[in-house]
Amino acid sequence: MFSTCIHPRFSDTDALGHINNTVIPVWFLEAREPVLRLFSPTLDMQSAALAVVRIEIDYLAETRFGSDVEIRTRVARLGNSSLQLAQEVWQDDHMTARGLATLVNFDPQARRATPIPESVRQALSGHMQTVQEG
Amino acid sequence: MFSTCIHPRFSDTDALGHINNTVIPVWFLEAREPVLRLFSPTLDMQSAALAVVRIEIDYLAETRFGSDVEIRTRVARLGNSSLQLAQEVWQDDHMTARGLATLVNFDPQARRATPIPESVRQALSGHMQTVQEG
Amino acid sequence: MFSTCIHPRFSDTDALGHINNTVIPVWFLEAREPVLRLFSPTLDMQSAALAVVRIEIDYLAETRFGSDVEIRTRVARLGNSSLQLAQEVWQDDHMTARGLATLVNFDPQARRATPIPESVRQALSGHMQTVQEG
Amino acid sequence: MFSTCIHPRFSDTDALGHINNTVIPVWFLEAREPVLRLFSPTLDMQSAALAVVRIEIDYLAETRFGSDVEIRTRVARLGNSSLQLAQEVWQDDHMTARGLATLVNFDPQARRATPIPESVRQALSGHMQTVQEG
Repeated sequence: MFSTCIHPRFSDTDALGHINNTVIPVWFLEAREPVLRLFSPTLDMQSAALAVVRIEIDYLAETRFGSDVEIRTRVARLGNSSLQLAQEVWQDDHMTARGLATLVNFDPQARRATPIPESVRQALSGHMQTVQEG
Repeated sequence: MFSTCIHPRFSDTDALGHINNTVIPVWFLEAREPVLRLFSPTLDMQSAALAVVRIEIDYLAETRFGSDVEIRTRVARLGNSSLQLAQEVWQDDHMTARGLATLVNFDPQARRATPIPESVRQALSGHMQTVQEG
Repeated sequence: MFSTCIHPRFSDTDALGHINNTVIPVWFLEAREPVLRLFSPTLDMQSAALAVVRIEIDYLAETRFGSDVEIRTRVARLGNSSLQLAQEVWQDDHMTARGLATLVNFDPQARRATPIPESVRQALSGHMQTVQEG
Repeated sequence: MFSTCIHPRFSDTDALGHINNTVIPVWFLEAREPVLRLFSPTLDMQSAALAVVRIEIDYLAETRFGSDVEIRTRVARLGNSSLQLAQEVWQDDHMTARGLATLVNFDPQARRATPIPESVRQALSGHMQTVQEG
Protein backbone atom coordinates (compact mmCIF):
# COMPACT_ATOMS: atom_id res chain seq x y z
CA MET A 1 0.00 0.00 0.00
CA PHE A 2 1.16 3.52 -0.81
CA SER A 3 0.19 6.13 1.77
CA THR A 4 0.07 9.84 0.90
CA CYS A 5 -0.69 12.61 3.39
CA ILE A 6 -2.65 15.55 2.03
CA HIS A 7 -3.23 18.87 3.75
CA PRO A 8 -6.61 20.17 2.51
CA ARG A 9 -6.36 23.75 1.23
CA PHE A 10 -8.94 26.39 2.03
CA SER A 11 -9.28 26.90 -1.72
CA ASP A 12 -10.37 23.22 -1.92
CA THR A 13 -13.58 24.03 -0.03
CA ASP A 14 -16.82 25.20 -1.63
CA ALA A 15 -19.86 27.20 -0.54
CA LEU A 16 -21.43 24.12 1.05
CA GLY A 17 -18.61 24.33 3.62
CA HIS A 18 -16.73 21.14 2.72
CA ILE A 19 -14.10 19.93 0.25
CA ASN A 20 -15.55 20.21 -3.26
CA ASN A 21 -16.09 16.84 -4.95
CA THR A 22 -13.83 17.80 -7.88
CA VAL A 23 -10.84 17.99 -5.51
CA ILE A 24 -10.83 14.24 -4.80
CA PRO A 25 -9.60 13.37 -8.35
CA VAL A 26 -6.77 15.91 -7.84
CA TRP A 27 -5.74 14.23 -4.57
CA PHE A 28 -5.95 10.77 -6.17
CA LEU A 29 -3.70 11.95 -9.02
CA GLU A 30 -1.19 13.30 -6.50
CA ALA A 31 -1.31 9.99 -4.58
CA ARG A 32 -0.45 8.06 -7.77
CA GLU A 33 2.91 9.84 -7.97
CA PRO A 34 4.84 7.06 -6.12
CA VAL A 35 3.43 4.62 -8.71
CA LEU A 36 4.60 6.88 -11.54
CA ARG A 37 8.04 7.04 -9.92
CA LEU A 38 8.33 3.23 -10.30
CA PHE A 39 8.06 3.78 -14.07
CA SER A 40 10.17 6.92 -14.15
CA PRO A 41 12.21 7.60 -10.97
CA THR A 42 12.97 11.17 -12.07
CA LEU A 43 9.36 11.82 -13.23
CA ASP A 44 10.72 12.60 -16.69
CA MET A 45 7.57 13.00 -18.79
CA GLN A 46 9.51 12.51 -22.04
CA SER A 47 10.46 8.94 -21.19
CA ALA A 48 7.40 7.55 -19.40
CA ALA A 49 3.81 8.44 -18.63
CA LEU A 50 0.80 6.75 -17.11
CA ALA A 51 -2.27 7.70 -19.15
CA VAL A 52 -5.53 7.67 -17.24
CA VAL A 53 -8.21 5.90 -19.25
CA ARG A 54 -10.92 5.58 -16.61
CA ILE A 55 -11.76 6.74 -13.09
CA GLU A 56 -14.61 5.84 -10.74
CA ILE A 57 -15.21 7.58 -7.43
CA ASP A 58 -17.74 6.86 -4.69
CA TYR A 59 -18.34 9.76 -2.33
CA LEU A 60 -19.14 8.25 1.09
CA ALA A 61 -19.08 11.26 3.43
CA GLU A 62 -18.10 14.91 3.50
CA THR A 63 -14.38 15.66 3.64
CA ARG A 64 -13.57 18.63 5.83
CA PHE A 65 -11.07 21.47 5.85
CA GLY A 66 -8.88 21.70 8.96
CA SER A 67 -7.85 18.05 9.32
CA ASP A 68 -5.21 16.13 7.34
CA VAL A 69 -6.21 13.38 4.96
CA GLU A 70 -4.49 10.08 4.15
CA ILE A 71 -4.82 8.64 0.66
CA ARG A 72 -4.29 4.87 0.55
CA THR A 73 -3.39 3.46 -2.86
CA ARG A 74 -3.22 -0.25 -3.70
CA VAL A 75 -2.82 -2.19 -6.94
CA ALA A 76 -6.15 -3.84 -7.75
CA ARG A 77 -5.21 -5.43 -11.08
CA LEU A 78 -2.02 -5.79 -13.10
CA GLY A 79 -2.43 -6.29 -16.86
CA ASN A 80 0.13 -6.47 -19.65
CA SER A 81 0.37 -2.75 -20.31
CA SER A 82 -2.35 -1.49 -17.98
CA LEU A 83 -3.01 -1.48 -14.26
CA GLN A 84 -5.87 -0.61 -11.96
CA LEU A 85 -5.39 1.24 -8.67
CA ALA A 86 -7.84 1.23 -5.76
CA GLN A 87 -7.65 4.46 -3.77
CA GLU A 88 -9.24 5.62 -0.53
CA VAL A 89 -9.55 8.96 1.26
CA TRP A 90 -9.27 8.65 5.03
CA GLN A 91 -9.93 11.51 7.48
CA ASP A 92 -10.25 11.16 11.26
CA ASP A 93 -10.61 7.34 11.03
CA HIS A 94 -13.38 7.52 8.45
CA MET A 95 -13.21 6.64 4.77
CA THR A 96 -14.84 9.60 3.01
CA ALA A 97 -14.30 8.47 -0.60
CA ARG A 98 -12.90 5.57 -2.58
CA GLY A 99 -12.05 5.18 -6.22
CA LEU A 100 -10.62 3.06 -9.00
CA ALA A 101 -8.24 4.39 -11.65
CA THR A 102 -7.33 2.47 -14.79
CA LEU A 103 -3.96 3.53 -16.16
CA VAL A 104 -2.02 2.57 -19.27
CA ASN A 105 1.76 2.54 -19.48
CA PHE A 106 2.26 4.99 -22.31
CA ASP A 107 5.39 5.56 -24.39
CA PRO A 108 5.40 9.35 -25.08
CA GLN A 109 7.84 8.96 -28.00
CA ALA A 110 6.02 6.16 -29.82
CA ARG A 111 2.68 7.55 -28.58
CA ARG A 112 1.24 4.13 -27.79
CA ALA A 113 0.72 1.68 -24.95
CA THR A 114 3.74 -0.38 -24.03
CA PRO A 115 4.14 -3.44 -21.70
CA ILE A 116 4.87 -2.78 -18.04
CA PRO A 117 8.58 -3.62 -17.51
CA GLU A 118 9.18 -6.75 -15.43
CA SER A 119 11.04 -4.88 -12.69
CA VAL A 120 8.17 -2.43 -12.30
CA ARG A 121 5.70 -5.32 -12.31
CA GLN A 122 7.51 -6.93 -9.41
CA ALA A 123 7.62 -3.68 -7.44
CA LEU A 124 3.92 -3.12 -8.06
CA SER A 125 2.99 -6.66 -6.99
CA GLY A 126 4.22 -5.77 -3.49
CA HIS A 127 1.40 -3.22 -3.30
CA MET A 128 -1.42 -5.53 -4.37
CA GLN A 129 -4.75 -5.22 -2.61
CA THR A 130 -5.27 -8.28 -0.39
CA VAL A 131 -8.32 -9.70 1.31
CA GLN A 132 -6.92 -8.81 4.72
CA GLU A 133 -6.22 -5.22 3.72
CA GLY A 134 -9.35 -4.61 1.69
CA MET B 1 -30.16 17.33 -23.69
CA PHE B 2 -28.41 20.18 -21.90
CA SER B 3 -25.56 21.74 -23.85
CA THR B 4 -22.82 23.76 -22.13
CA CYS B 5 -20.00 25.57 -23.92
CA ILE B 6 -16.67 25.60 -22.11
CA HIS B 7 -13.63 27.67 -23.01
CA PRO B 8 -10.56 25.67 -21.87
CA ARG B 9 -8.23 27.76 -19.74
CA PHE B 10 -4.47 27.69 -20.16
CA SER B 11 -4.27 26.84 -16.46
CA ASP B 12 -6.29 23.69 -17.29
CA THR B 13 -3.36 22.27 -19.28
CA ASP B 14 -0.54 20.20 -17.81
CA ALA B 15 3.09 19.48 -18.72
CA LEU B 16 2.01 16.78 -21.17
CA GLY B 17 0.60 19.64 -23.27
CA HIS B 18 -3.12 18.82 -22.97
CA ILE B 19 -6.01 19.42 -20.61
CA ASN B 20 -5.25 17.65 -17.33
CA ASN B 21 -7.58 14.73 -16.60
CA THR B 22 -8.68 16.28 -13.28
CA VAL B 23 -10.27 19.20 -15.16
CA ILE B 24 -12.98 17.02 -16.77
CA PRO B 25 -14.84 16.52 -13.44
CA VAL B 26 -14.76 20.34 -12.99
CA TRP B 27 -16.33 20.86 -16.43
CA PHE B 28 -18.92 18.14 -15.77
CA LEU B 29 -19.85 19.85 -12.49
CA GLU B 30 -20.24 23.18 -14.30
CA ALA B 31 -22.40 21.50 -16.97
CA ARG B 32 -24.75 20.13 -14.27
CA GLU B 33 -25.69 23.68 -13.25
CA PRO B 34 -28.82 23.82 -15.51
CA VAL B 35 -29.98 20.62 -13.77
CA LEU B 36 -29.40 22.19 -10.36
CA ARG B 37 -31.38 25.23 -11.49
CA LEU B 38 -34.42 23.00 -12.01
CA PHE B 39 -34.27 22.19 -8.30
CA SER B 40 -33.34 25.70 -7.20
CA PRO B 41 -33.82 28.43 -9.85
CA THR B 42 -31.81 30.93 -7.83
CA LEU B 43 -29.08 28.40 -6.98
CA ASP B 44 -29.79 29.01 -3.31
CA MET B 45 -27.66 26.40 -1.52
CA GLN B 46 -29.66 26.74 1.69
CA SER B 47 -32.84 25.43 0.08
CA ALA B 48 -31.65 22.73 -2.32
CA ALA B 49 -28.52 20.83 -3.23
CA LEU B 50 -27.61 17.91 -5.46
CA ALA B 51 -25.10 15.75 -3.60
CA VAL B 52 -22.73 13.78 -5.81
CA VAL B 53 -22.50 10.18 -4.62
CA ARG B 54 -20.65 8.63 -7.54
CA ILE B 55 -18.85 9.61 -10.73
CA GLU B 56 -17.37 7.51 -13.54
CA ILE B 57 -15.31 8.97 -16.37
CA ASP B 58 -13.85 7.31 -19.48
CA TYR B 59 -11.05 9.27 -21.11
CA LEU B 60 -11.25 8.59 -24.85
CA ALA B 61 -8.80 11.08 -26.36
CA GLU B 62 -6.73 14.10 -25.43
CA THR B 63 -8.64 17.36 -24.95
CA ARG B 64 -6.72 20.36 -26.24
CA PHE B 65 -6.27 24.00 -25.28
CA GLY B 66 -7.21 26.53 -27.97
CA SER B 67 -10.55 25.10 -29.11
CA ASP B 68 -13.94 25.37 -27.37
CA VAL B 69 -15.60 22.33 -25.86
CA GLU B 70 -19.26 21.34 -25.71
CA ILE B 71 -20.51 19.33 -22.74
CA ARG B 72 -23.66 17.34 -23.49
CA THR B 73 -25.66 16.27 -20.47
CA ARG B 74 -28.60 13.89 -20.54
CA VAL B 75 -30.67 12.18 -17.85
CA ALA B 76 -29.78 8.47 -17.88
CA ARG B 77 -31.95 7.35 -14.95
CA LEU B 78 -34.56 8.98 -12.73
CA GLY B 79 -35.08 7.44 -9.28
CA ASN B 80 -37.21 8.51 -6.36
CA SER B 81 -34.71 10.87 -4.77
CA SER B 82 -31.71 10.22 -7.01
CA LEU B 83 -30.85 10.65 -10.66
CA GLN B 84 -28.06 9.65 -12.98
CA LEU B 85 -26.64 11.97 -15.64
CA ALA B 86 -24.70 10.88 -18.72
CA GLN B 87 -22.22 13.52 -19.82
CA GLU B 88 -19.93 13.86 -22.83
CA VAL B 89 -17.06 16.18 -23.77
CA TRP B 90 -17.04 17.12 -27.46
CA GLN B 91 -14.24 19.02 -29.16
CA ASP B 92 -13.86 19.50 -32.94
CA ASP B 93 -16.47 16.80 -33.69
CA HIS B 94 -14.78 14.20 -31.47
CA MET B 95 -15.96 12.87 -28.13
CA THR B 96 -12.89 13.09 -25.88
CA ALA B 97 -14.46 11.90 -22.62
CA ARG B 98 -17.77 10.62 -21.28
CA GLY B 99 -19.03 10.12 -17.78
CA LEU B 100 -21.85 9.16 -15.46
CA ALA B 101 -22.74 11.10 -12.33
CA THR B 102 -25.11 9.80 -9.67
CA LEU B 103 -26.73 12.62 -7.71
CA VAL B 104 -29.07 12.69 -4.72
CA ASN B 105 -31.62 15.41 -4.11
CA PHE B 106 -30.46 16.62 -0.71
CA ASP B 107 -32.34 18.76 1.78
CA PRO B 108 -29.64 20.98 3.38
CA GLN B 109 -31.86 21.82 6.37
CA ALA B 110 -32.92 18.26 7.22
CA ARG B 111 -29.55 16.98 5.98
CA ARG B 112 -31.04 13.97 4.23
CA ALA B 113 -32.19 12.74 0.83
CA THR B 114 -35.62 13.91 -0.23
CA PRO B 115 -37.87 12.89 -3.18
CA ILE B 116 -37.46 14.74 -6.47
CA PRO B 117 -40.49 17.09 -6.78
CA GLU B 118 -42.98 16.09 -9.48
CA SER B 119 -42.52 19.32 -11.45
CA VAL B 120 -38.75 18.82 -11.53
CA ARG B 121 -39.23 15.18 -12.53
CA GLN B 122 -41.31 16.25 -15.51
CA ALA B 123 -38.78 18.85 -16.57
CA LEU B 124 -35.97 16.29 -16.27
CA SER B 125 -37.84 13.66 -18.27
CA GLY B 126 -37.61 15.98 -21.27
CA HIS B 127 -33.83 15.55 -21.15
CA MET B 128 -33.77 11.74 -21.00
CA GLN B 129 -31.15 9.91 -23.00
CA THR B 130 -32.82 8.16 -25.96
CA VAL B 131 -31.67 5.41 -28.26
CA GLN B 132 -31.46 7.82 -31.18
CA GLU B 133 -29.42 10.33 -29.22
CA GLY B 134 -27.13 7.89 -27.40
CA MET C 1 -10.54 47.23 -24.30
CA PHE C 2 -10.80 43.45 -24.37
CA SER C 3 -13.96 42.10 -22.74
CA THR C 4 -14.19 38.49 -21.55
CA CYS C 5 -17.30 36.89 -20.08
CA ILE C 6 -16.71 34.36 -17.30
CA HIS C 7 -19.26 31.99 -15.84
CA PRO C 8 -18.23 31.39 -12.20
CA ARG C 9 -18.03 27.69 -11.36
CA PHE C 10 -19.39 26.24 -8.15
CA SER C 11 -15.93 24.77 -7.59
CA ASP C 12 -14.62 28.38 -7.61
CA THR C 13 -16.46 29.10 -4.35
CA ASP C 14 -15.06 28.49 -0.87
CA ALA C 15 -16.47 27.83 2.58
CA LEU C 16 -17.02 31.56 3.16
CA GLY C 17 -19.72 31.31 0.47
CA HIS C 18 -18.08 33.42 -2.23
CA ILE C 19 -15.54 33.07 -5.04
CA ASN C 20 -12.18 32.22 -3.50
CA ASN C 21 -9.58 34.98 -3.90
CA THR C 22 -7.18 32.60 -5.71
CA VAL C 23 -9.67 32.27 -8.59
CA ILE C 24 -9.29 35.91 -9.69
CA PRO C 25 -5.73 35.33 -11.05
CA VAL C 26 -7.12 32.34 -13.03
CA TRP C 27 -9.82 34.54 -14.58
CA PHE C 28 -7.31 37.31 -15.34
CA LEU C 29 -5.06 34.76 -17.08
CA GLU C 30 -8.01 33.54 -19.16
CA ALA C 31 -8.89 37.14 -20.05
CA ARG C 32 -5.37 37.75 -21.34
CA GLU C 33 -5.86 35.12 -24.04
CA PRO C 34 -6.97 37.65 -26.74
CA VAL C 35 -3.72 39.53 -26.03
CA LEU C 36 -1.71 36.31 -26.42
CA ARG C 37 -3.51 35.67 -29.72
CA LEU C 38 -2.09 38.94 -31.08
CA PHE C 39 1.37 37.45 -30.57
CA SER C 40 0.42 33.93 -31.70
CA PRO C 41 -2.93 33.67 -33.51
CA THR C 42 -2.95 29.86 -33.18
CA LEU C 43 -1.80 29.97 -29.53
CA ASP C 44 1.21 27.87 -30.51
CA MET C 45 3.32 27.81 -27.33
CA GLN C 46 6.44 26.75 -29.25
CA SER C 47 6.56 30.00 -31.21
CA ALA C 48 5.44 32.66 -28.72
CA ALA C 49 4.70 33.08 -25.05
CA LEU C 50 3.91 35.92 -22.70
CA ALA C 51 5.78 35.31 -19.45
CA VAL C 52 4.17 36.82 -16.36
CA VAL C 53 6.74 38.63 -14.27
CA ARG C 54 4.48 40.45 -11.82
CA ILE C 55 0.84 40.65 -10.78
CA GLU C 56 -0.98 42.94 -8.36
CA ILE C 57 -4.61 42.48 -7.37
CA ASP C 58 -6.87 44.65 -5.22
CA TYR C 59 -9.92 42.85 -3.86
CA LEU C 60 -12.70 45.43 -3.60
CA ALA C 61 -15.81 43.34 -2.86
CA GLU C 62 -16.98 39.75 -2.74
CA THR C 63 -17.55 38.05 -6.09
CA ARG C 64 -20.53 35.72 -6.06
CA PHE C 65 -21.52 32.42 -7.64
CA GLY C 66 -24.68 32.50 -9.75
CA SER C 67 -24.06 35.65 -11.78
CA ASP C 68 -21.78 36.08 -14.82
CA VAL C 69 -18.67 38.20 -14.61
CA GLU C 70 -17.06 40.49 -17.18
CA ILE C 71 -13.31 40.90 -17.20
CA ARG C 72 -12.15 44.17 -18.79
CA THR C 73 -8.56 44.22 -19.97
CA ARG C 74 -6.71 47.32 -21.19
CA VAL C 75 -3.09 48.04 -22.06
CA ALA C 76 -1.65 50.27 -19.34
CA ARG C 77 1.93 50.49 -20.61
CA LEU C 78 3.78 49.33 -23.72
CA GLY C 79 7.54 48.82 -23.39
CA ASN C 80 10.12 47.46 -25.82
CA SER C 81 9.66 43.79 -24.97
CA SER C 82 7.24 44.08 -22.05
CA LEU C 83 3.73 45.34 -21.50
CA GLN C 84 1.46 46.03 -18.56
CA LEU C 85 -2.24 45.14 -18.57
CA ALA C 86 -4.87 46.68 -16.30
CA GLN C 87 -7.70 44.25 -15.60
CA GLU C 88 -11.02 44.58 -13.80
CA VAL C 89 -13.66 42.13 -12.58
CA TRP C 90 -17.22 43.42 -13.03
CA GLN C 91 -20.32 41.69 -11.65
CA ASP C 92 -23.81 43.20 -11.52
CA ASP C 93 -22.48 46.73 -12.28
CA HIS C 94 -19.89 46.61 -9.50
CA MET C 95 -16.14 46.29 -9.83
CA THR C 96 -15.19 43.53 -7.37
CA ALA C 97 -11.46 43.37 -8.13
CA ARG C 98 -8.83 45.05 -10.26
CA GLY C 99 -5.29 44.11 -11.12
CA LEU C 100 -2.12 44.84 -13.01
CA ALA C 101 -0.11 42.21 -14.85
CA THR C 102 3.38 42.79 -16.20
CA LEU C 103 4.20 40.48 -19.09
CA VAL C 104 7.32 39.90 -21.15
CA ASN C 105 7.30 38.80 -24.77
CA PHE C 106 9.29 35.60 -24.48
CA ASP C 107 10.91 33.59 -27.26
CA PRO C 108 10.50 29.94 -26.17
CA GLN C 109 13.25 28.74 -28.54
CA ALA C 110 15.89 31.29 -27.57
CA ARG C 111 14.52 31.32 -23.99
CA ARG C 112 14.85 35.09 -23.63
CA ALA C 113 12.83 38.29 -23.91
CA THR C 114 12.36 39.61 -27.41
CA PRO C 115 10.97 42.94 -28.73
CA ILE C 116 7.23 43.21 -29.33
CA PRO C 117 6.71 43.08 -33.15
CA GLU C 118 5.59 46.37 -34.67
CA SER C 119 2.30 44.91 -35.99
CA VAL C 120 1.42 43.60 -32.52
CA ARG C 121 2.39 46.95 -30.98
CA GLN C 122 -0.04 48.74 -33.26
CA ALA C 123 -2.84 46.29 -32.49
CA LEU C 124 -2.17 46.67 -28.76
CA SER C 125 -2.15 50.47 -28.93
CA GLY C 126 -5.82 50.30 -29.92
CA HIS C 127 -6.54 48.83 -26.49
CA MET C 128 -4.69 51.44 -24.41
CA GLN C 129 -6.25 52.62 -21.19
CA THR C 130 -7.49 56.18 -21.63
CA VAL C 131 -8.50 58.85 -19.16
CA GLN C 132 -12.12 58.66 -20.27
CA GLU C 133 -12.25 54.90 -19.87
CA GLY C 134 -10.22 54.62 -16.64
CA MET D 1 9.10 33.06 10.15
CA PHE D 2 6.48 30.49 9.26
CA SER D 3 7.73 27.68 7.01
CA THR D 4 5.33 25.57 4.95
CA CYS D 5 6.36 22.60 2.80
CA ILE D 6 4.41 22.15 -0.42
CA HIS D 7 4.51 19.15 -2.70
CA PRO D 8 3.79 20.44 -6.25
CA ARG D 9 1.01 18.48 -7.95
CA PHE D 10 1.20 17.35 -11.55
CA SER D 11 -2.11 19.14 -12.07
CA ASP D 12 -0.29 22.35 -11.01
CA THR D 13 1.82 22.26 -14.19
CA ASP D 14 0.82 23.76 -17.53
CA ALA D 15 1.66 23.15 -21.19
CA LEU D 16 4.84 25.22 -20.88
CA GLY D 17 6.13 22.39 -18.65
CA HIS D 18 6.31 24.28 -15.35
CA ILE D 19 4.07 25.24 -12.44
CA ASN D 20 1.38 27.59 -13.75
CA ASN D 21 1.65 31.14 -12.39
CA THR D 22 -1.90 30.98 -10.95
CA VAL D 23 -0.80 28.21 -8.55
CA ILE D 24 1.52 30.49 -6.55
CA PRO D 25 -1.42 32.46 -4.99
CA VAL D 26 -2.93 29.06 -3.98
CA TRP D 27 0.30 28.05 -2.25
CA PHE D 28 0.60 31.46 -0.56
CA LEU D 29 -2.97 31.11 0.75
CA GLU D 30 -2.16 27.66 2.11
CA ALA D 31 0.99 29.02 3.76
CA ARG D 32 -1.04 31.72 5.56
CA GLU D 33 -2.95 29.03 7.46
CA PRO D 34 -0.64 29.13 10.54
CA VAL D 35 -1.31 32.89 10.69
CA LEU D 36 -5.07 32.28 10.50
CA ARG D 37 -4.72 29.73 13.32
CA LEU D 38 -3.38 32.49 15.59
CA PHE D 39 -6.72 34.27 15.13
CA SER D 40 -8.83 31.10 15.24
CA PRO D 41 -7.01 28.00 16.55
CA THR D 42 -9.79 25.70 15.30
CA LEU D 43 -10.06 27.50 11.93
CA ASP D 44 -13.70 28.20 12.71
CA MET D 45 -14.81 30.49 9.88
CA GLN D 46 -17.84 31.68 11.82
CA SER D 47 -15.75 33.32 14.51
CA ALA D 48 -12.77 34.75 12.64
CA ALA D 49 -11.55 35.34 9.12
CA LEU D 50 -8.66 37.11 7.46
CA ALA D 51 -9.97 38.92 4.40
CA VAL D 52 -7.44 39.40 1.61
CA VAL D 53 -7.57 42.97 0.32
CA ARG D 54 -4.45 43.02 -1.85
CA ILE D 55 -1.77 40.70 -3.21
CA GLU D 56 1.38 41.38 -5.17
CA ILE D 57 3.56 38.64 -6.66
CA ASP D 58 6.89 38.85 -8.46
CA TYR D 59 7.75 35.80 -10.53
CA LEU D 60 11.53 35.40 -10.46
CA ALA D 61 12.10 31.98 -12.05
CA GLU D 62 10.24 28.89 -13.18
CA THR D 63 8.98 26.60 -10.42
CA ARG D 64 9.25 22.93 -11.36
CA PHE D 65 7.26 19.77 -10.76
CA GLY D 66 9.17 16.95 -9.06
CA SER D 67 10.85 18.88 -6.26
CA ASP D 68 9.34 20.08 -2.97
CA VAL D 69 8.87 23.76 -2.31
CA GLU D 70 9.22 25.76 0.91
CA ILE D 71 7.03 28.80 1.45
CA ARG D 72 8.51 31.29 3.92
CA THR D 73 6.05 33.71 5.46
CA ARG D 74 6.98 36.70 7.60
CA VAL D 75 5.04 39.63 9.03
CA ALA D 76 6.05 42.76 7.10
CA ARG D 77 3.71 45.23 8.79
CA LEU D 78 1.28 45.13 11.71
CA GLY D 79 -1.54 47.68 11.69
CA ASN D 80 -4.52 48.16 13.98
CA SER D 81 -6.86 45.75 12.20
CA SER D 82 -4.71 44.84 9.20
CA LEU D 83 -1.40 43.15 8.59
CA GLN D 84 0.93 42.61 5.68
CA LEU D 85 2.72 39.32 5.06
CA ALA D 86 5.84 38.87 2.94
CA GLN D 87 5.99 35.44 1.35
CA GLU D 88 8.63 33.61 -0.66
CA VAL D 89 8.69 30.41 -2.72
CA TRP D 90 11.96 28.47 -2.38
CA GLN D 91 12.87 25.44 -4.49
CA ASP D 92 16.33 23.82 -4.61
CA ASP D 93 17.96 26.82 -2.87
CA HIS D 94 16.49 29.35 -5.30
CA MET D 95 13.73 31.86 -4.63
CA THR D 96 11.34 31.45 -7.57
CA ALA D 97 8.65 33.92 -6.47
CA ARG D 98 7.95 36.41 -3.72
CA GLY D 99 4.81 38.23 -2.72
CA LEU D 100 3.05 40.59 -0.36
CA ALA D 101 -0.45 39.96 0.98
CA THR D 102 -2.47 42.60 2.82
CA LEU D 103 -5.05 41.04 5.15
CA VAL D 104 -7.76 42.51 7.33
CA ASN D 105 -8.98 40.92 10.55
CA PHE D 106 -12.63 40.48 9.70
CA ASP D 107 -15.51 39.77 12.07
CA PRO D 108 -17.84 37.44 10.10
CA GLN D 109 -20.79 38.16 12.40
CA ALA D 110 -20.54 41.95 12.38
CA ARG D 111 -19.19 41.85 8.81
CA ARG D 112 -16.57 44.48 9.40
CA ALA D 113 -12.90 44.93 10.21
CA THR D 114 -12.01 44.55 13.85
CA PRO D 115 -8.76 45.27 15.77
CA ILE D 116 -6.16 42.50 16.00
CA PRO D 117 -6.34 41.13 19.58
CA GLU D 118 -3.32 41.95 21.73
CA SER D 119 -2.40 38.28 22.27
CA VAL D 120 -2.40 37.65 18.50
CA ARG D 121 -0.39 40.83 17.96
CA GLN D 122 2.29 39.58 20.33
CA ALA D 123 2.41 36.18 18.66
CA LEU D 124 2.67 37.81 15.23
CA SER D 125 5.44 40.17 16.33
CA GLY D 126 7.65 37.10 16.84
CA HIS D 127 7.42 36.48 13.11
CA MET D 128 8.35 39.98 11.94
CA GLN D 129 10.62 40.33 8.95
CA THR D 130 14.04 41.52 10.16
CA VAL D 131 17.04 42.96 8.37
CA GLN D 132 19.10 39.87 9.17
CA GLU D 133 16.45 37.49 7.80
CA GLY D 134 15.46 39.44 4.73
